[in-house]
Amino acid sequence: MIGNFTYCNPTKLYFGKGALEGLNSELPKYGKNVLLVYGGGSVKRNGIYDKVVAVLKANGKEIYEDAGVMPNPTIEKVKEGVERARAANADLILAVGGGSVCDYAKAVSVSVHCEEDIWEKYFVRFEDVSCKVVPVGCVLTMVGTGSEMNGGSVITNHEKKLKIGHVFGENVYPKFSVLDPEFTFTVPRYQMISGIYDIMSHILEQYFSGTDDNTSDYLSEGLLRSLIHSAEIAAEDPLDYEARSNIMWTATWALNTLIAKGKTTDWMVHKIGQAVGAYTDATHGMTLSAVSMPYYRLILPYGTPKFARYAVNVWGVDPANKTEEAVAYEGLKRMEAWMKKLGLVMNLTDLGATREMLDGMVESTLMNGGGYKVLSKEDVRAVLLASF
Amino acid sequence: MIGNFTYCNPTKLYFGKGALEGLNSELPKYGKNVLLVYGGGSVKRNGIYDKVVAVLKANGKEIYEDAGVMPNPTIEKVKEGVERARAANADLILAVGGGSVCDYAKAVSVSVHCEEDIWEKYFVRFEDVSCKVVPVGCVLTMVGTGSEMNGGSVITNHEKKLKIGHVFGENVYPKFSVLDPEFTFTVPRYQMISGIYDIMSHILEQYFSGTDDNTSDYLSEGLLRSLIHSAEIAAEDPLDYEARSNIMWTATWALNTLIAKGKTTDWMVHKIGQAVGAYTDATHGMTLSAVSMPYYRLILPYGTPKFARYAVNVWGVDPANKTEEAVAYEGLKRMEAWMKKLGLVMNLTDLGATREMLDGMVESTLMNGGGYKVLSKEDVRAVLLASF
Repeated sequence: MIGNFTYCNPTKLYFGKGALEGLNSELPKYGKNVLLVYGGGSVKRNGIYDKVVAVLKANGKEIYEDAGVMPNPTIEKVKEGVERARAANADLILAVGGGSVCDYAKAVSVSVHCEEDIWEKYFVRFEDVSCKVVPVGCVLTMVGTGSEMNGGSVITNHEKKLKIGHVFGENVYPKFSVLDPEFTFTVPRYQMISGIYDIMSHILEQYFSGTDDNTSDYLSEGLLRSLIHSAEIAAEDPLDYEARSNIMWTATWALNTLIAKGKTTDWMVHKIGQAVGAYTDATHGMTLSAVSMPYYRLILPYGTPKFARYAVNVWGVDPANKTEEAVAYEGLKRMEAWMKKLGLVMNLTDLGATREMLDGMVESTLMNGGGYKVLSKEDVRAVLLASF
Repeated sequence: MIGNFTYCNPTKLYFGKGALEGLNSELPKYGKNVLLVYGGGSVKRNGIYDKVVAVLKANGKEIYEDAGVMPNPTIEKVKEGVERARAANADLILAVGGGSVCDYAKAVSVSVHCEEDIWEKYFVRFEDVSCKVVPVGCVLTMVGTGSEMNGGSVITNHEKKLKIGHVFGENVYPKFSVLDPEFTFTVPRYQMISGIYDIMSHILEQYFSGTDDNTSDYLSEGLLRSLIHSAEIAAEDPLDYEARSNIMWTATWALNTLIAKGKTTDWMVHKIGQAVGAYTDATHGMTLSAVSMPYYRLILPYGTPKFARYAVNVWGVDPANKTEEAVAYEGLKRMEAWMKKLGLVMNLTDLGATREMLDGMVESTLMNGGGYKVLSKEDVRAVLLASF
């Protein structure tokens, strides 16, 4: 059943080769001060920075820089960005990078005109935005988070050992995003497959909840089949435009609210993975892959019919002459084999986690999720232990 | 491959039981003159009219009426609506009805401030809108066309024996749409299944084109599976909320541009069906079902791999020990059986068409479509002849 909801996703997308040209349609809508946000400098090495600056200059913009956004952006860095945006009197924040840079840009955008402690307001009390928002635009260079077309913003607080996501409303969504698959070609293989699993996890965490019949789950199965197929091709040949463009488009729809509409969701893999991230600073998608199999094996008995459906519809398991449970487990086995073949990290040790961090990671795990089983802290501990 | 495109769909949706409450959030955004557009009066009999009027009055609106929009709205009626909108100095056009009423409202909205001949401008020359657009909102009472979240507007010219659709840009999309599945419960069975086939045809006409690998096709397969499943339930029990809500949501995504992104499309079933509609004034979805099987059997040899994929992924045909061609035809056979079981019209005679209309219908068929085969006029004639 499709439960009650409202839906609106106003982000304008420019997709494909040469999509950066779309900036020429968007930039005139904003004032002249642009805060250009990016990460560690890869956009300078691969030439994307120069291309973006050229378009900004051609549109008569005043460029202010905010570089050095880290893969797991910190609240300290956000506060620095807020100061830069204020000093620039920014009319537009243009994020050039992956999900971290987009997430970061949104966190800055809702804080520039906010006088409160932004960690407390948005990431502890999860309050709505009550101030003016500086518009954000994105030029995506890495695929996975869906941040280019949603209100999500995940920020890390190292002092408190917390990595927390706030989902802002549609007024905080990027006004526009440029999605050129070729801009992702220089992403290192490890980052590419990490992003692929981030997408996978987004879909699964919305899929594995609920026992009713819901169109969203059929859409999720379609996205999963497309992703699995294209990921195998991209892993062999990262320069395969067809595969990379399909992955990029799948990523956007995996987390722009559509496939969660009218249904319940889970999200515990993200909650546990984010706790791992807070302790290890590991690449986001790999924290998810490392804990997924123990998590899904733990909850399978509580949602066996859905896991069996997943096995048949997504992994092509033949259900003939098998129990529902056997079908369900065979689906997870095929998924695990696919993950290993891609080269995803399958344990916490490889991410630099140690058993000494266990208590802390359990403590850091936000418990506001859960699909077929509402986890206890003991369950979280069991999942983490089984992930070493 | 995902080809280049831009995407933006800004329509705000209120979905579910009691979704009409959403009007309280939307109406304050517009001036006080509302042109209330509806059809033959069923909304008065089922009480929806009274509910809408109550919300309009509670929001202090001045209500101007434009009733009598017919199932295949005519250009004469559009011109009458334009006069009414001008006389009312309408700030908002609120369409209460099915796709025809929404289509009609959009045609009026782009013509109120336009001095040109609107048939010639929009439905012959297919020009862009160059005047101010009066905003449109929808309260949907019948499901199928997707008009609640797109720029489509199909208008009939009886004098010229033409039924033509113009797809307007995102500035013409409804600003908001209210989708309450219970509002569709009183739709007669014939209209309900006609709408279901309209949805089916929308998806198929975007799916059956192209030979590359494209995420959109996987999404289409998901929508098709959901629709086929829910349609069977709704045909048995039209008051099954789960099925009706899934059908309603599927209809929206079947034609709001998403599943056509980055790929080629077909649309010849609609072109031929619209020619039939221009001659018979038959219910839209039934004109599509009547010509579909002959059309798909004609083009199958030109797109056999896709028809085989359709058979396996959508209809669950087991491909083992069969030729691709055999698999493909088995898929169409299953589709045909499903159509007959639902009670769809499978021939033109049942729609009141006669062989005397054949030349005219061939002539009226717009040829600006085509997927696996670009049809000649002789092909169109063959499809129509095989549909008697």
